[in-house]
Amino acid sequence: MCGIVGVLTHAPANQTLYDALLLLQHRGQQAAGIATDNDSVFAMHKANGLVTDVFRTRNMRTLRGRAGIGHCSCAAYGPSCDEEAQPFYVNAPYGITLAHNGQVANGDALRRELSVTARRHINTPSDAEVLLNVLAHEVHAASQGESLSPAMLFTAIACLQRRVQGSYAAVAQVAGHGILAFRDPQGVRPLCLGVRAGANGEGEGNEYMFASESVALEGMGFAYVRDVAPGEAIYVSLDGQLHARQLSVQHGARPSAFEFVSLARPDSVIDGASVYAARLKLGELLAEQVRAQLDTGAIDVVMPFDDIARPAAIQLALKLGLDYREGFIQNRYPGRTFDLPPSAIVRKAVSQRVNAIGTEFNGKRILLVEDAIVDAASTRELVQLARQAGATWVALASTAPPVRRPKVYGVDWPARRKPASMGATHDDMRANVTADALVFQDLKALKAAIAGANPALRELEISCFE
Amino acid sequence: MCGIVGVLTHAPANQTLYDALLLLQHRGQQAAGIATDNDSVFAMHKANGLVTDVFRTRNMRTLRGRAGIGHCSCAAYGPSCDEEAQPFYVNAPYGITLAHNGQVANGDALRRELSVTARRHINTPSDAEVLLNVLAHEVHAASQGESLSPAMLFTAIACLQRRVQGSYAAVAQVAGHGILAFRDPQGVRPLCLGVRAGANGEGEGNEYMFASESVALEGMGFAYVRDVAPGEAIYVSLDGQLHARQLSVQHGARPSAFEFVSLARPDSVIDGASVYAARLKLGELLAEQVRAQLDTGAIDVVMPFDDIARPAAIQLALKLGLDYREGFIQNRYPGRTFDLPPSAIVRKAVSQRVNAIGTEFNGKRILLVEDAIVDAASTRELVQLARQAGATWVALASTAPPVRRPKVYGVDWPARRKPASMGATHDDMRANVTADALVFQDLKALKAAIAGANPALRELEISCFE
Amino acid sequence: MCGIVGVLTHAPANQTLYDALLLLQHRGQQAAGIATDNDSVFAMHKANGLVTDVFRTRNMRTLRGRAGIGHCSCAAYGPSCDEEAQPFYVNAPYGITLAHNGQVANGDALRRELSVTARRHINTPSDAEVLLNVLAHEVHAASQGESLSPAMLFTAIACLQRRVQGSYAAVAQVAGHGILAFRDPQGVRPLCLGVRAGANGEGEGNEYMFASESVALEGMGFAYVRDVAPGEAIYVSLDGQLHARQLSVQHGARPSAFEFVSLARPDSVIDGASVYAARLKLGELLAEQVRAQLDTGAIDVVMPFDDIARPAAIQLALKLGLDYREGFIQNRYPGRTFDLPPSAIVRKAVSQRVNAIGTEFNGKRILLVEDAIVDAASTRELVQLARQAGATWVALASTAPPVRRPKVYGVDWPARRKPASMGATHDDMRANVTADALVFQDLKALKAAIAGANPALRELEISCFE
Amino acid sequence: MCGIVGVLTHAPANQTLYDALLLLQHRGQQAAGIATDNDSVFAMHKANGLVTDVFRTRNMRTLRGRAGIGHCSCAAYGPSCDEEAQPFYVNAPYGITLAHNGQVANGDALRRELSVTARRHINTPSDAEVLLNVLAHEVHAASQGESLSPAMLFTAIACLQRRVQGSYAAVAQVAGHGILAFRDPQGVRPLCLGVRAGANGEGEGNEYMFASESVALEGMGFAYVRDVAPGEAIYVSLDGQLHARQLSVQHGARPSAFEFVSLARPDSVIDGASVYAARLKLGELLAEQVRAQLDTGAIDVVMPFDDIARPAAIQLALKLGLDYREGFIQNRYPGRTFDLPPSAIVRKAVSQRVNAIGTEFNGKRILLVEDAIVDAASTRELVQLARQAGATWVALASTAPPVRRPKVYGVDWPARRKPASMGATHDDMRANVTADALVFQDLKALKAAIAGANPALRELEISCFE
Repeated sequence: MCGIVGVLTHAPANQTLYDALLLLQHRGQQAAGIATDNDSVFAMHKANGLVTDVFRTRNMRTLRGRAGIGHCSCAAYGPSCDEEAQPFYVNAPYGITLAHNGQVANGDALRRELSVTARRHINTPSDAEVLLNVLAHEVHAASQGESLSPAMLFTAIACLQRRVQGSYAAVAQVAGHGILAFRDPQGVRPLCLGVRAGANGEGEGNEYMFASESVALEGMGFAYVRDVAPGEAIYVSLDGQLHARQLSVQHGARPSAFEFVSLARPDSVIDGASVYAARLKLGELLAEQVRAQLDTGAIDVVMPFDDIARPAAIQLALKLGLDYREGFIQNRYPGRTFDLPPSAIVRKAVSQRVNAIGTEFNGKRILLVEDAIVDAASTRELVQLARQAGATWVALASTAPPVRRPKVYGVDWPARRKPASMGATHDDMRANVTADALVFQDLKALKAAIAGANPALRELEISCFE
Repeated sequence: MCGIVGVLTHAPANQTLYDALLLLQHRGQQAAGIATDNDSVFAMHKANGLVTDVFRTRNMRTLRGRAGIGHCSCAAYGPSCDEEAQPFYVNAPYGITLAHNGQVANGDALRRELSVTARRHINTPSDAEVLLNVLAHEVHAASQGESLSPAMLFTAIACLQRRVQGSYAAVAQVAGHGILAFRDPQGVRPLCLGVRAGANGEGEGNEYMFASESVALEGMGFAYVRDVAPGEAIYVSLDGQLHARQLSVQHGARPSAFEFVSLARPDSVIDGASVYAARLKLGELLAEQVRAQLDTGAIDVVMPFDDIARPAAIQLALKLGLDYREGFIQNRYPGRTFDLPPSAIVRKAVSQRVNAIGTEFNGKRILLVEDAIVDAASTRELVQLARQAGATWVALASTAPPVRRPKVYGVDWPARRKPASMGATHDDMRANVTADALVFQDLKALKAAIAGANPALRELEISCFE
Repeated sequence: MCGIVGVLTHAPANQTLYDALLLLQHRGQQAAGIATDNDSVFAMHKANGLVTDVFRTRNMRTLRGRAGIGHCSCAAYGPSCDEEAQPFYVNAPYGITLAHNGQVANGDALRRELSVTARRHINTPSDAEVLLNVLAHEVHAASQGESLSPAMLFTAIACLQRRVQGSYAAVAQVAGHGILAFRDPQGVRPLCLGVRAGANGEGEGNEYMFASESVALEGMGFAYVRDVAPGEAIYVSLDGQLHARQLSVQHGARPSAFEFVSLARPDSVIDGASVYAARLKLGELLAEQVRAQLDTGAIDVVMPFDDIARPAAIQLALKLGLDYREGFIQNRYPGRTFDLPPSAIVRKAVSQRVNAIGTEFNGKRILLVEDAIVDAASTRELVQLARQAGATWVALASTAPPVRRPKVYGVDWPARRKPASMGATHDDMRANVTADALVFQDLKALKAAIAGANPALRELEISCFE
Repeated sequence: MCGIVGVLTHAPANQTLYDALLLLQHRGQQAAGIATDNDSVFAMHKANGLVTDVFRTRNMRTLRGRAGIGHCSCAAYGPSCDEEAQPFYVNAPYGITLAHNGQVANGDALRRELSVTARRHINTPSDAEVLLNVLAHEVHAASQGESLSPAMLFTAIACLQRRVQGSYAAVAQVAGHGILAFRDPQGVRPLCLGVRAGANGEGEGNEYMFASESVALEGMGFAYVRDVAPGEAIYVSLDGQLHARQLSVQHGARPSAFEFVSLARPDSVIDGASVYAARLKLGELLAEQVRAQLDTGAIDVVMPFDDIARPAAIQLALKLGLDYREGFIQNRYPGRTFDLPPSAIVRKAVSQRVNAIGTEFNGKRILLVEDAIVDAASTRELVQLARQAGATWVALASTAPPVRRPKVYGVDWPARRKPASMGATHDDMRANVTADALVFQDLKALKAAIAGANPALRELEISCFE
């Protein structure tokens, strides 16, 4: 998962990009980067680490210019290094930087093609570098012999859409020209547009921002305008002119259901649907499953697993008329294990991360609500923590159906999290997480819940649940 | 506010101290330090910053030894510097390091006394340095001509208790001897003892930990034994012998009410009272005030201000039969403002820190629950954020009475937070925070709520509310 | 001035490149960089600072692979930034990295040409980026539709030689292919080839190194083979095959006389001439000028200005039968001035850098020998230091003629050093440096001295003296 | 070896202390530290590393005040850590910081005494910490019940002189009082006093500096006044009053001969003797030994080993009428070996450090001049380097007698350098360093040479040569 941002302002863009990345950092905490365009000269800084660790004053000083793009990501490729952080840069044609969120399905084929046909060297395993080079190649083809125009960029992206399979929401900038944002034809990954109106209020002097989630726009004082449509590209030139074009057959967005279940911030709106509203609805519909499958009268208390599951758990408790309580306390300050000889110490990872309030569990029958069971081991640890704290019975309700496929282009699972539910029976899964009972949302309800937040949203990327 | 920890284990103590400080870091994020005793040689590292920033691998490597103390603190003295971080060290007599949580009321007099009588140089404005030098002076006096014994240490602390006024919960270590923990005669600041039982289970080979809050004991695999009693000192020698002595007239603890209202983690138990239980009870009793003062039928939804207020808000909503919702989303990744020329950018501090979910506020009448109104400006900003998000009426309920006195030895306010309610009328206060209505817990209810969590707890340090 | 190195070994190349840069660092202390090729993937690290500051263990770890290039440079462009450090990288075609030493005369024209014709974006003011993009453009043109061969690379460099005016000695690497070294047709800047013979001694398994000066080859255990000829390109493929081709009309090298006067290490051999031998000879011939212009009988002692002037000064003293002494002691540890308020302190720059031993100057008539008078202010400061130390008469002898032109492609003066002698009369110059007498080498003697070190060396780049 | 400095100025002292340490850094490059007194509050920063690495802007900012002391040192205790860097601090009595150069002979006994009698904890293996605690103990004893006076400090140092055996030249400061400098009764280690006269020129408003070598005074614009006499203490109060007292029987200084042979900068004057003059004289007298023992007619050239031996080698060549040349070129940029897997690379340490110019050695008979043969391995490496460069015969002349004893209080050898000549015959030593001939200065000549630089200097600390 990644967060992306692009901005064109009247003031230096660096602090705005930095602040926006902080607001998107729930989407990826492993690496961060910013590239700005200062009078046709790119400045770029990227590295592994949290945004606050990656950007020091000396880095920010070099990131000059009124336009720029930024990126934060979780590590998708094992032992990654700073070079794989985004944005990426190519110097021909024109000089282009790009950052993206998504997963290219035909990456290997594109790499071969780029190397043989275009003689373009791809230096890292990053999808973003592939995407950028396809873009560069197409821009080069589209702009033969003439000076660059928005139309050429749109032609290039239309070609890119035909060549690249998978999901991508991307921001790019062409040196000395402007900021470009585009989304794959299915709109699997989110991207939205915001504006800060100029003085005369008629579009002149407008400032623009693109961001993965609307929360970043609002946090930076930009008004949410709309989502970038699936298959659309929007280009904002450095003089503030906005050009938008639909490049593939227009159909509705097909955003990843996982954004609503787990990934996005609750205060974001994605493709017209409030994430918070969707989560409340997920809780409401899950309540029905619970009522159907469990003896709700025997449940003493409903509890969320963590912050993400909270809205659904509150609503579920309300629907079932059950007490809502929070017995797990997260530790907000995770540390690290030092490799110090002699080291007999093994840190108790779970108890470092979360603690159970004894009085809330002791002698009680608990219904835990989790957003989705992705990592069976983590779920099992919390169930056991509840038992150690005295719970006499622990049931588990998941606001999403079982995760059946580990890697589809809708979602890229971090390597260490393996879906618990691939090919397993319901009882196997229950036993695996050591719960006394296990209730899943069904797929239809999942769709209904998200549609409940925006009836116009008729399709969802749900391949991981099928 | 500070967190303190002291530990004697069979393994290297550095990782344990580091992990414990992370579990106590909600008590202070401005500075951190650790001092260990390795064969009578102290290693120490302390600096401003978060625990994870202060301790690098190279620092941890030097922190050898099986015993040590640690400290995390918020800056109490304006532009502080690394030297004021704790622990502190004096080399005569014996070599002693100390870390404390509290506030010395007669610090200036003690400084003069130490300088003139004892010719001891106090190099910083820190109370901890004063406390350590009083301890050193008394240990020197108590141990004249003989080798150090637990009895001498107890004599010294008894003298210290007579000289030092104010609140102090402290851990100290004497080089090559052991770990010492003591608490002022009123027990205003918390300190508790944990044990990890040795192999034979009869006290031999026991490992011990002292910590500000029980959550740190549990997180590190130590069983909570009891609180250090007010006026008591406990000494654990490096060979694992535990000596405890009550040094002042025994009376019940008089812990700071603010620990229960705001400071401590909800999953901690302080002087026998569960902080979580106290907060639930605060919500319950506050519900009665709300019912008496407001038309609860006209309230659409109850919301907590932030994580701290959540348990009380849940319980208050339950009692009043009102809907409970969370409309404010905290940003977990605070950043910083860079001083970059030209800098026309002023970051919107509040919108960086917290965001309001529009649908939860729009057109609604909201009752916000806050733990205590300490900083009127912050409270006002959130009230206004609720209005901007569309709330038609915003009432505020505080789980604590108005904060009347800014600096008493129970609580040391950070400089930038000035109590809003000093000398103001109820209506002034309401207008100041721009709420439509304002309900305070009364002092009697505050006491009752905390007593509800431990009936034996008959006294509380409440001077800031009087 | 810069130092460059390229290496192909059987072992990891990073430590070898690092060590070689240390041996070349007298050529530039402001920035350093290394790029390695690890299975067709480039790793690169570059930054401002000394080699020892730029490369940390974490950087070295990422610089994997058996082949690589390195660079150290002095800042040529005012307030430079890390991005302008070399090597540079382009990803199309093939992926190429390059580092160079020299000065491109028609840089502005090439930039325009690259931008308009080739649509290549040049992101920095660095000549190296221009040179690399010309190379990339020509390689692209030469390799249309076929796989890369040494012949294509030679064709590309032949084209580059026609397009690029000025001086350049360069090392480059093509990802997954090999190391390339080439020198401009005049051979103004030095570059030589070394070999470490493989086991069978017949060329198989040979390891190769290119470096600006022979001292780096010897220091790293490579045997000096020969200089890269002016206008020649040498390509070593990753499997160890060496291909060399003369690409311009063959004529003798025309190295910069300044290398022999000041720039190169005395223990290097450049285009067949020992720098040390040239400096001795410069002293010898300067002795004749001194004898002709001064009353040598009245000179008490001959002294060098600094380390660079020492060989010439020793030889001059010997020739004139005068005592040789060293009265200036360099401080080996330069520091910095902190910007600390209040800052009334102005550091005495000269006395920080060099100190005069009073007894060597007091009451004496001194002949100071300097390599070349480039920065009149520095020279004046030392003359005055000699007087303050008690010298009754201070004459100055320069082993080079007056520097007449500040910026020619032979030498790029650092901005702050302005030649003292542009358009000035001999007496003006003497007065400017406040010497009692001033003797210059004449141009003919300069040529003769260097030719004395290698009679085959018939031409020199001497435009700065004309 | 260490360098120390103490200063009282009208302006902030930090930059002055920093600059002075750079001028003294040839005496120790492993660690550095500064402590300043700012209105009775000490600020201190110390760490391992070069002065330029230890002090960053943030450190300098905290080092406020007009008075301070500084220290640079070579590591004397194997794997040292930052805590052992000087200065040291004790807070009782008064608050004292101290830095010293020397070697305490009865350190173990003093440690026991301090621990048992004074209950003072010594936390490191550093002699400086022992010396400081003896001083603190004696100041405490001397000042019982009364406010501190210069007389008390002198009493304390007189007692310290009786208790501490060995060599020590020290600077100290008492918080809020002033700067103290003292030297052991034999004056083994150097310490001198400088002044910058106040406006009226009559002592009022004078600024003072103490430093290990006069070069630091001169470099900072202080006029050399005199050496601190052996057994003398000088106290400068913060209001600028200077008090000096001779505390032991006055006899002439007995400085370490090694200062003149190797340690001090040539441009320093120690106890009235110019180091440079002493080195010239050492060369002159060594010439006689060479003439007596070798066939000087068969020697082609005289060469110094390195910078330290240069003055003696120049003078020796002059006396013998032999050619003087420099064939070894030092690399001014030493690097480090990274521990990188797989690491087949073993750096050639010597060729990294020094390079031989072939033409100066090839076919020649060389007389190498070294200051003193301390580390046989290093000497041997250079002899062999000369042979590899083609020398047909290599003789070695040492300006000092054989080093017979490794650790005497005159000199503390770094652990890795073991004197080559302990108990060995002349021929063993010659064979050990693989020279064709070996000539030592005799002890009488050593004394004569130094006396030649100051006839008043009748005694020398020469125990390492006996």
